[in-house]
Amino acid sequence: MILHIKKNAPLQLLLDFYKAAYFEAEETYVLITSSSVKEIETSHKEYVDYNKTFESDIQLASKDYITKRSIQIGDILIGGQSNNTLMITGPCSVESMEQIETSAQFLIKNNIKILRAGCFKPRTSPYTFQGLGSKGLDMLVEMREKYGLKIITEAKDATHIDEVIEKSDIIQIGAKAMYDHGILKACSKTQKPVLIKRGFGSTLQEFVQSAEFVLSGGNPNVMLCERGIRTFENKTRFTLDLCGVSYLKEYTNLPIILDPSHAMGYRYGVADLARACVAMGIDGLLIESHPNPKVAQSDASQQLDFDQFVALQNSLIPVAEAVGMQMI
Amino acid sequence: MILHIKKNAPLQLLLDFYKAAYFEAEETYVLITSSSVKEIETSHKEYVDYNKTFESDIQLASKDYITKRSIQIGDILIGGQSNNTLMITGPCSVESMEQIETSAQFLIKNNIKILRAGCFKPRTSPYTFQGLGSKGLDMLVEMREKYGLKIITEAKDATHIDEVIEKSDIIQIGAKAMYDHGILKACSKTQKPVLIKRGFGSTLQEFVQSAEFVLSGGNPNVMLCERGIRTFENKTRFTLDLCGVSYLKEYTNLPIILDPSHAMGYRYGVADLARACVAMGIDGLLIESHPNPKVAQSDASQQLDFDQFVALQNSLIPVAEAVGMQMI
Amino acid sequence: MILHIKKNAPLQLLLDFYKAAYFEAEETYVLITSSSVKEIETSHKEYVDYNKTFESDIQLASKDYITKRSIQIGDILIGGQSNNTLMITGPCSVESMEQIETSAQFLIKNNIKILRAGCFKPRTSPYTFQGLGSKGLDMLVEMREKYGLKIITEAKDATHIDEVIEKSDIIQIGAKAMYDHGILKACSKTQKPVLIKRGFGSTLQEFVQSAEFVLSGGNPNVMLCERGIRTFENKTRFTLDLCGVSYLKEYTNLPIILDPSHAMGYRYGVADLARACVAMGIDGLLIESHPNPKVAQSDASQQLDFDQFVALQNSLIPVAEAVGMQMI
Amino acid sequence: MILHIKKNAPLQLLLDFYKAAYFEAEETYVLITSSSVKEIETSHKEYVDYNKTFESDIQLASKDYITKRSIQIGDILIGGQSNNTLMITGPCSVESMEQIETSAQFLIKNNIKILRAGCFKPRTSPYTFQGLGSKGLDMLVEMREKYGLKIITEAKDATHIDEVIEKSDIIQIGAKAMYDHGILKACSKTQKPVLIKRGFGSTLQEFVQSAEFVLSGGNPNVMLCERGIRTFENKTRFTLDLCGVSYLKEYTNLPIILDPSHAMGYRYGVADLARACVAMGIDGLLIESHPNPKVAQSDASQQLDFDQFVALQNSLIPVAEAVGMQMI
Repeated sequence: MILHIKKNAPLQLLLDFYKAAYFEAEETYVLITSSSVKEIETSHKEYVDYNKTFESDIQLASKDYITKRSIQIGDILIGGQSNNTLMITGPCSVESMEQIETSAQFLIKNNIKILRAGCFKPRTSPYTFQGLGSKGLDMLVEMREKYGLKIITEAKDATHIDEVIEKSDIIQIGAKAMYDHGILKACSKTQKPVLIKRGFGSTLQEFVQSAEFVLSGGNPNVMLCERGIRTFENKTRFTLDLCGVSYLKEYTNLPIILDPSHAMGYRYGVADLARACVAMGIDGLLIESHPNPKVAQSDASQQLDFDQFVALQNSLIPVAEAVGMQMI
Repeated sequence: MILHIKKNAPLQLLLDFYKAAYFEAEETYVLITSSSVKEIETSHKEYVDYNKTFESDIQLASKDYITKRSIQIGDILIGGQSNNTLMITGPCSVESMEQIETSAQFLIKNNIKILRAGCFKPRTSPYTFQGLGSKGLDMLVEMREKYGLKIITEAKDATHIDEVIEKSDIIQIGAKAMYDHGILKACSKTQKPVLIKRGFGSTLQEFVQSAEFVLSGGNPNVMLCERGIRTFENKTRFTLDLCGVSYLKEYTNLPIILDPSHAMGYRYGVADLARACVAMGIDGLLIESHPNPKVAQSDASQQLDFDQFVALQNSLIPVAEAVGMQMI
Repeated sequence: MILHIKKNAPLQLLLDFYKAAYFEAEETYVLITSSSVKEIETSHKEYVDYNKTFESDIQLASKDYITKRSIQIGDILIGGQSNNTLMITGPCSVESMEQIETSAQFLIKNNIKILRAGCFKPRTSPYTFQGLGSKGLDMLVEMREKYGLKIITEAKDATHIDEVIEKSDIIQIGAKAMYDHGILKACSKTQKPVLIKRGFGSTLQEFVQSAEFVLSGGNPNVMLCERGIRTFENKTRFTLDLCGVSYLKEYTNLPIILDPSHAMGYRYGVADLARACVAMGIDGLLIESHPNPKVAQSDASQQLDFDQFVALQNSLIPVAEAVGMQMI
Repeated sequence: MILHIKKNAPLQLLLDFYKAAYFEAEETYVLITSSSVKEIETSHKEYVDYNKTFESDIQLASKDYITKRSIQIGDILIGGQSNNTLMITGPCSVESMEQIETSAQFLIKNNIKILRAGCFKPRTSPYTFQGLGSKGLDMLVEMREKYGLKIITEAKDATHIDEVIEKSDIIQIGAKAMYDHGILKACSKTQKPVLIKRGFGSTLQEFVQSAEFVLSGGNPNVMLCERGIRTFENKTRFTLDLCGVSYLKEYTNLPIILDPSHAMGYRYGVADLARACVAMGIDGLLIESHPNPKVAQSDASQQLDFDQFVALQNSLIPVAEAVGMQMI
């Protein structure tokens, strides 16, 4: 149950009674109990301005609570009534200043506003490139300062989450970190936008509940990113779950970003899939692009080269229009 | 290996030697061996007009053999260079003459040319509606005769495949029958178009190899239909595998039809998914629609009513155009 | 709902009223309606000797109806109170008279009573060995006559099911044919034991409902065979679902046979898995063995050679004893 | 490639050249490069006492490097030539001093040496019991001091890993934290035994590579714990992957612990599955037990009560013996 509590209510008493999470909003405290709580004690009703019950622990993210949330990223607006589909691109990893600056200049030239690149890479083998870490993050910051781009990068575990929150414009919680309470809790205490990638073995219920961890700490700026789930099919890297995206659109209020690059794992399918994603009427796309994919130190097979990216970008404009959206 | 053999070659000798499947084409015999065969005996070379090796048993369906096959269904052309995306619709099951005629009239009014409806229903419980069987098939035939529609219906096992082949314009091999050799073999001996639905537990490799059973018997008119695979996610009925569709487009030559209704299992997601499918540049769509979904005897939750279908149909036109296709 | 109806009741009227399946037992008609039927009309109560409602369409197979069914195969008894774990072995396919006779003699020597071997192979490629068909089946029959073995072989589709029913002692319904109504219906009209393999993409609910097709036609002699499901893990061929076996033991009344050979796909794991299966207290094992696995025409990687089989067989005796069962 | 390097070799030069991970052993430095490195530079050969190449990044954990590792936990030995199957039990969560002490006394009475219980619970909803955290960990420590039990508890993210390493006898890396580099790195720098649970969406390759993160930092005391993977089957909580256990036994050198409680999710199947696990010849079992499962604050449906546990414990002795092992 979500309760909006008057500011002069006995907050701690109510928190203890309902074993509730909470955050402070402008004119109210927002308390969130287990969804199994279905009634308010009579003696508490005087403190409650609003309350609503839910079938499951998808509560703050539920369309029954708020129809559609919007998120402001600098002067960029997504979600809500904006009808914007935001393009985010960049290489899988920051590999060098030269590489990331080439990418940054490519974005500027093509009117893309948000640069993505990984610094803390959650590789599954200890014997491969693990990313440039803080050094890479500083390069991204330099790109922001020099080119006015917004930057998004991933936290892979709680040891560097504070640094990522401080320096990044959007904090990406990677698929492998979707359940990381250390990260989720830290993200709930900032107001910076957070993009949560669905774990490839995670149900939609768990995915949205990860967002609830961030929302219930007081950060309303959460985006959900579908990036493919793991299935028996192994001709492709993962299986992009667009049925799941339909579910998220129908039942949740959070902006939805799609990442067809990781789902597919191969360059050849990225453009078709990206067009399919945009035709779903989503809020944004994450596409991996690289100055020279052949020499990329991670995800070489799925990154687009710049010509391929521009061709894709152009092809998305009419698809977005066909469903009443605009690419930004 | 595929071999094109001169008509005057010692056919049986070659079949035995290579343990090959074959069919007779106009000016040649087409032999197909295991893909593990990589070389032709020197003494056989004089009989061979053409030969090509393949990495796997995807051979006749491979883009390396033929770039893109087309299929003629009456005056309708799909695949090849046609740029057509074909709409097929109708109820899950034939339930009564009144119901199917209402559907047929709806199709005519909305300029749809192909009516789908099941007669032999592969239900998973013996205690539910099993379809009208031959009686339903005869109703479909009556719709063809009265309204000039083409009809597609499903064979669920080999006991009625001959009847389906005789009376239907397109033979649908259901997801649960994808491996049914009795059905596949019978379909290989007709020239009628065959639509093979991917088994929900079947790999892409197996899916295309099912088509090879039909193609290698001499029927070139095979369509592949992705309709969702079974994954851990159960908020939706299945998971539509558009990454797999990218694979099929890249590596096979067969027209590709998408069935978002069965993948989703819920009305609310069908339209968004259908638009995503069309944005992939596919050859056709199968959409379940019903005069009154609430009383449908099967798949009640996923069938569109007529208003919903018309809204979807209209919305698909600009999406198809955006990717250089046209809805027919 | 299951109803036991008096022999003098108006059968057709009741069948129509409840849209029920039925079969005739010695002293009653057994009617099975949809599980959604929860009440009997007052006017029908006089005809009903027994009735029971169920939560799902698992009814005749439910432990709530019968605690544990037993099956007699010649002088072999499994299930019920027998505490027998039956060993079935033999090659994947009948390849030649010499091969199958070598196997038959091996069984006799090692006191195994049931010979398995495939004749109609449901291969996923048309360009591989498809089995010897009827010729192979006749070889199996010869083995029965010559050595007194019982034989089990698989029907892959409805075109040859009558032949398999006639000549085999146990009819195996293959994993790919689990939904084949043509096969299931034919098997429901015999009294011969039927072993249904779980489809690798099939839920437990669907699996048991396949058995309901056979049971509700009047054949009580159904065994369930778990042989691995398809998951994201591809280091092994399939994933043997022993959690599912626990479910089947808890909720159904059918004897349970395990096939670790197909689940694993590799010889090295078969013995360990077979011991695990036997420790579950199951009713039987299907193990592939071959006189010379290296030259086997199908499943070469997973068949045990005779030495490996004998070692396994010996090791199973104390495991069965440890859980109160005996290997037969 | 694994290289054993002389202590007087130019370590940093070699690390840079091969981009290798390393740790210091008694008489050598152990360097581990990407498995794609197949040859040593001629000029480096003088520094190399031993080297071995591998097909994949499973290297230190490979049976090709070490046949079977053993782990000493106090006076308990598992793995290696020990033939011990270790029982670990306790409640899902520490809930109160009374509850955990009741459990501890139960263990003592039944001669169990290792107590498990969670303090930092990686719940998927923020609105449920999250564990007692450090307070719970201190209670576990008190149990060790008072009763001489060894304790194992889980780290759910990097924020409390140091505390868990300091106070626990075995560090459990939970399924949801299997990719957590913060945790893995910290565990690699201690010598305390580490039990890594397989992520329910993780491949065997990734699972063993998680162990490589710990091993390559210099901690050889790693156990692998299979606890069920996520599949399409939802009658049970997860699907215990015993085929995968066969793979791990065949190809890796790490002790293997099985957790049937989480795999099954229901009390009724735990005992059968535990017997199956022991029949695989594994090194240990993790079983959830609780003084009063009905009131458990997490995993209530799968925890055994004490009577059920004792019955299970007794039944395991002959199963272990049947496969040449002994329960400890």
